[in-house]
Amino acid sequence: MDRLEQQMNFILEIDKLKNITRQNYLADGSRKEDDADHSWHLAMMCAILSEYSNEKIDVMKTMTMVLIHDLVEIDAGDTYAYDAQGNISKRERELKAAERIFNLLPRDQAEQIRSLWDEFEESITPEARFANTVDKLQPLFLNAKSGGVSWKEHGVTLSQILKRNETTHEGSETLWNYGKEIIRVNVENGNLTNE
Amino acid sequence: MDRLEQQMNFILEIDKLKNITRQNYLADGSRKEDDADHSWHLAMMCAILSEYSNEKIDVMKTMTMVLIHDLVEIDAGDTYAYDAQGNISKRERELKAAERIFNLLPRDQAEQIRSLWDEFEESITPEARFANTVDKLQPLFLNAKSGGVSWKEHGVTLSQILKRNETTHEGSETLWNYGKEIIRVNVENGNLTNE
Repeated sequence: MDRLEQQMNFILEIDKLKNITRQNYLADGSRKEDDADHSWHLAMMCAILSEYSNEKIDVMKTMTMVLIHDLVEIDAGDTYAYDAQGNISKRERELKAAERIFNLLPRDQAEQIRSLWDEFEESITPEARFANTVDKLQPLFLNAKSGGVSWKEHGVTLSQILKRNETTHEGSETLWNYGKEIIRVNVENGNLTNE
Repeated sequence: MDRLEQQMNFILEIDKLKNITRQNYLADGSRKEDDADHSWHLAMMCAILSEYSNEKIDVMKTMTMVLIHDLVEIDAGDTYAYDAQGNISKRERELKAAERIFNLLPRDQAEQIRSLWDEFEESITPEARFANTVDKLQPLFLNAKSGGVSWKEHGVTLSQILKRNETTHEGSETLWNYGKEIIRVNVENGNLTNE
């Protein structure tokens, strides 16, 4: 198969990301967000908020990272952050998905995207740390704006959120401070339970 | 209002892009695509297909351009490509929207995003030409894959599609040749009417 044909097959295959539904709602609470919506929003956060990264980052690399970070969910599905059972098998399911989906691309691009995804997962470079920080904060902002509808639906508590955000400060102290203030307000107004 | 607060207001405001529905369907025909889905898909096309640009492009700039190119539709709504009436007032509605939405950002970023949107609209730089090319081809690919459901719904004809794609070759001859082949096949199989 020729190079362009392989690339176009990939471009059509990843259309399926739009059918993967997340657990958090849009800011107006009207419906749950899909993975492509979410990835677009993270890329916009990279474009607008990169000045707050703790370390200097390559913004283009970080944007591409967030654009591709959820592609594995096309096969593996979205595993809710607070689903303990699902998170046990998550890594294995996602590795298998990465193998199939990225390898639709020509070898050089398959390796490039795979390496970017691995970097996101390992979260030890400045770019991956910032990408993981916006990935954690975006649903927090949407949940707060929607009146905590998804937190209430799943009975999510303050301690769960704090545990999930243990490393969020590593990408950006400034954005995490902003996030902490949002959490404080939402405990105070009862959107989030402090058990 | 401080800088971060302005930026976060913008980040939350643009969540509304996910509620702007386009006329084309996802590749599987299951539902119509939303603007954030579409913008994400274009950014992925920039990441994967930029090697086919007629001219050398700054990929990061082009990606950012497609990520923001539809934000004005939050106020102006999606104007269907083949809606003659709607397209008369489109420019005015979108200029007003650009004024409001981009100016939620701090001045420097508002100017930067506005200038990127103007560049996309004028379509005279290599980056804007490539961005416009993928913006035209992406719904073509999805329509073809879904069996032409949106073309049939709106009675879109071959000559309308060719007129709409008069300048698509300017961003990439290679991708436009690929697009032409898709069009030929879809006229042949009856998804698209050659009146």
